[in-house]
Amino acid sequence: MMNWLNHIAIVVPDLAAAAAQYKLLGATTSAPKDLPEHGVTVVFVGIPNTKIELMHPLGEGSPIAGFLEKNPAGGIHHICFEVAEIDETSAKLREIGVRILGDGKPKFGAHDRPVLFAHPKDFQGALIEFQQT
Amino acid sequence: MMNWLNHIAIVVPDLAAAAAQYKLLGATTSAPKDLPEHGVTVVFVGIPNTKIELMHPLGEGSPIAGFLEKNPAGGIHHICFEVAEIDETSAKLREIGVRILGDGKPKFGAHDRPVLFAHPKDFQGALIEFQQT
Repeated sequence: MMNWLNHIAIVVPDLAAAAAQYKLLGATTSAPKDLPEHGVTVVFVGIPNTKIELMHPLGEGSPIAGFLEKNPAGGIHHICFEVAEIDETSAKLREIGVRILGDGKPKFGAHDRPVLFAHPKDFQGALIEFQQT
Repeated sequence: MMNWLNHIAIVVPDLAAAAAQYKLLGATTSAPKDLPEHGVTVVFVGIPNTKIELMHPLGEGSPIAGFLEKNPAGGIHHICFEVAEIDETSAKLREIGVRILGDGKPKFGAHDRPVLFAHPKDFQGALIEFQQT
């Protein structure tokens, strides 16, 4: 059920500076992409076996604004696993006592695929996203 | 220079419970392994393209005891990238203004390979380990 690690998301205070740093260390970086419907601007850092998403708040009420206030230097925000069937994952998580954030229903994520986030309190303090492949 | 993502390390309050949860979601998990010289007990969670290291403090003065005190529910602790030459990485990090934790010299890590950690304050708040392949 829990397949490929799709990405690691890192919230950063300065997207250009962060991207430049990864580039200087030899990683490939994309141009910044505004995702207004998700309240974030992202830069993808390519690593051969996965990717890193550098994220910065965009607009009012960004879902990551609070994280950056609490962690002004930035920090690792979440990790995302691919799953074959998001509804099956949702059912399994509930079955093993893991709450799902929000109204509990999968949403369309930043990659236009159904996603859900498990409650960190029910997942060893780590914010885990599941994304349907 | 920055190659394969070797692992994501997650500090957990209860290693057995954490391992069981990943197993219930279909991941493979190793038996717990005590690494007294590193002050941690680890369980490896296998994901096809990388691995997760679930870590719990072991013994007195564990380097992750403070993290668990600050984050009693646990949390994502660091991510580790493989590099070809740790000395080259060390020089490059200094060159771009990134401090190295400790005395600045590579150490033998939990995988018996030379590693170093970049200072999170100089790396967007994320704790990044570099491990020589």
